[in-house]
Amino acid sequence: MGENLTRNVLVAQSGGPTAVINSSVAGIVTEAKGNEKVDEIYGAINGILGVLNEDLVDFGLEDPAAIQQLRHTPSAALGSCRYKLGDRDYARLLEALAAHNVRYFLCAGGNDSMDTAHKLARLASAKGLELQVIGVPKTVDNDLMITDHCPGYGSVARFNATATRDSGLDTEAIYTSDTIKIIETMGRDTGWITASTALGRDGEDSAPHLIYLPERPLIAESFLNDVKDVYNRLGKAVICVCEGLRNEKGEFLKASSKDLDTDKFGHAQLGGVGEYLANLIAKHLKIKARCDKPGTIQRVSMACASQVDLTEAYEVGRVAFSKAVNGETDKMVTIMRKREDPYESDYGLVELQEVALRTKKFPDTFINKQSNFVSDSFLKYATPLIGGPLQEYAHLRKERVKKQLPQYM
Amino acid sequence: MGENLTRNVLVAQSGGPTAVINSSVAGIVTEAKGNEKVDEIYGAINGILGVLNEDLVDFGLEDPAAIQQLRHTPSAALGSCRYKLGDRDYARLLEALAAHNVRYFLCAGGNDSMDTAHKLARLASAKGLELQVIGVPKTVDNDLMITDHCPGYGSVARFNATATRDSGLDTEAIYTSDTIKIIETMGRDTGWITASTALGRDGEDSAPHLIYLPERPLIAESFLNDVKDVYNRLGKAVICVCEGLRNEKGEFLKASSKDLDTDKFGHAQLGGVGEYLANLIAKHLKIKARCDKPGTIQRVSMACASQVDLTEAYEVGRVAFSKAVNGETDKMVTIMRKREDPYESDYGLVELQEVALRTKKFPDTFINKQSNFVSDSFLKYATPLIGGPLQEYAHLRKERVKKQLPQYM
Repeated sequence: MGENLTRNVLVAQSGGPTAVINSSVAGIVTEAKGNEKVDEIYGAINGILGVLNEDLVDFGLEDPAAIQQLRHTPSAALGSCRYKLGDRDYARLLEALAAHNVRYFLCAGGNDSMDTAHKLARLASAKGLELQVIGVPKTVDNDLMITDHCPGYGSVARFNATATRDSGLDTEAIYTSDTIKIIETMGRDTGWITASTALGRDGEDSAPHLIYLPERPLIAESFLNDVKDVYNRLGKAVICVCEGLRNEKGEFLKASSKDLDTDKFGHAQLGGVGEYLANLIAKHLKIKARCDKPGTIQRVSMACASQVDLTEAYEVGRVAFSKAVNGETDKMVTIMRKREDPYESDYGLVELQEVALRTKKFPDTFINKQSNFVSDSFLKYATPLIGGPLQEYAHLRKERVKKQLPQYM
Repeated sequence: MGENLTRNVLVAQSGGPTAVINSSVAGIVTEAKGNEKVDEIYGAINGILGVLNEDLVDFGLEDPAAIQQLRHTPSAALGSCRYKLGDRDYARLLEALAAHNVRYFLCAGGNDSMDTAHKLARLASAKGLELQVIGVPKTVDNDLMITDHCPGYGSVARFNATATRDSGLDTEAIYTSDTIKIIETMGRDTGWITASTALGRDGEDSAPHLIYLPERPLIAESFLNDVKDVYNRLGKAVICVCEGLRNEKGEFLKASSKDLDTDKFGHAQLGGVGEYLANLIAKHLKIKARCDKPGTIQRVSMACASQVDLTEAYEVGRVAFSKAVNGETDKMVTIMRKREDPYESDYGLVELQEVALRTKKFPDTFINKQSNFVSDSFLKYATPLIGGPLQEYAHLRKERVKKQLPQYM
């Protein structure tokens, strides 16, 4: 294929959206533009589905200002998908890439996408095709191996830190009536996201007071004792829980009812673990609990995006293209922590097979002994990722005025 | 009482927290400071409870910088309460106010608080006491009479507009799998808050696609037809619903079960209307729907606060104090819309009895004919309140590359 000198770039976005995955695309496109080894720059609509269906867009026809705006546009501008590739799909992928003279394929995604990229790179290499495949890390779940952290995580963390602090102030203000609040976050199998709610804590008695991660089974009795302890001490409690919490039997904790009409989705699901625990508290402690569940809002909030995350996402895009054009393939870009204070990062490469389908666990050392909060080592790890301190709020001294009358209530 | 020349100011915050009620306090304190008719400036801890218990703080001992920071600190820094005053409490209130030489009492709250303020003003006047009582409007529910709108509303509206737009982009990106999203907002009895989700809509086919307000009963069949129509047309749907939706019988729509253990709170509540409707969709349309429920996060988000709202909240505080010190009493400050484009407002006064315990309804003309969206007149009314356009996001042209291969899927 040496005679064909057209060399195009293709970018694809995969998996769940984040606040910064478009920033990676902006990095790739910006770096590729004007490079002498590049003719056209394409984007795949809805990730790998766009490649299979040749549904590609031409970045050369986009307004350069729009490319720059991608750096501050949440979700996935090209669209994503959750499509499980079959064996015969890989041949088609190679065919489609060849038909469009794609020499550099950059794929932003999590460990599933890295597996796809890995298989594709291996197959292209086996067939002697000129195709450089580089993975661009992206996942709010922060569970890719080797890389210190994943673009997308710092922003979901900043959202949750901010929301928990704000929502905690809400509970504090009105704690004469609404005393217990549960905040349910994403993060099905790992505690990375839920743990980030601790990053906005102003002091030991500030929200969140308790954090429950899916790495530990939730034991109802311990949970209720924890809540009671905090409540007795402070008169309030803000509790952050992961949507993927399970009991000792490994069953997901969900408010559900076998009694209601069911359908092909199985038993009617009437709410998540937040509602389940609110009911548990109501039943056993006789206190009404509120439940906030920001859901997908947490992973695509540009108002709360981390500047560090936005910048790193852009840089991993730039590095991914540079590496591809310099002949690297079958690798993913990694972020390396270079310095703690002030925080600085650098970028490296790892073999895709080291990250494909593998999950980085939330370390045991990041959970406290009582299994009801994060440890200081987690705070040290995650604090730089949210991109600087949260907005400063007023702290009043509240010096009391001397009482003049007999006690009333 | 003419011989006692000490004249103090007292500020109280009441009801649910907002992003801007502290800004009103900052306005009051800033305006009162240095006024020759004022000796001390106090704040009541937990609203009217702080007055009853003489739990007062001295603003004179606060750092002036902290007072200014209140302009950007969400929730209620002095604390709030939901305490229903009994008849005997009013005598105690007057006694406590007199004991601390309070001549100017400024109370920020909703229509309940305005009732308290009204009764207090009337009683003081009947007893010949020198007490000026001025109400400071505050409610995310936007349901106070006479005033064009209420401080707190513009910010909850900006949060919901932003979150719905972001969350809509999330659904759009991944619509090959997660196609339907329900966003449940606050606003128990009126549609003001839920309606605001429309303010971030980028175009006719952008989120939100459907909005259901508590002013109309939710009819399951119409709802399912609406969802099916949008889904068939766009392949996705983002649906915003008010937590207070009811069916034709006037019953709240909630996922609940008579089968589960119940307690003094009645039947176990397993989720709100969002989960209920997600189940309805799953059952009848066989599509899985996600549910986002930002809960209290929406009313105290400083990251999404409206600059117009922050400014107006500060100004109503300033005006409230000025009016009190100039001899007005038994009145609430109102916001008057002076100009549409560019938006300008002015401030006035209304008798407290005009607003006490009364609720401003969400106008019929603000709901579309099909009862599944807001009208253009609502958008015209509410758009200026969110304080300028939302952050601009990239809009790609997405010019397609010519296909080269036979159709695949």
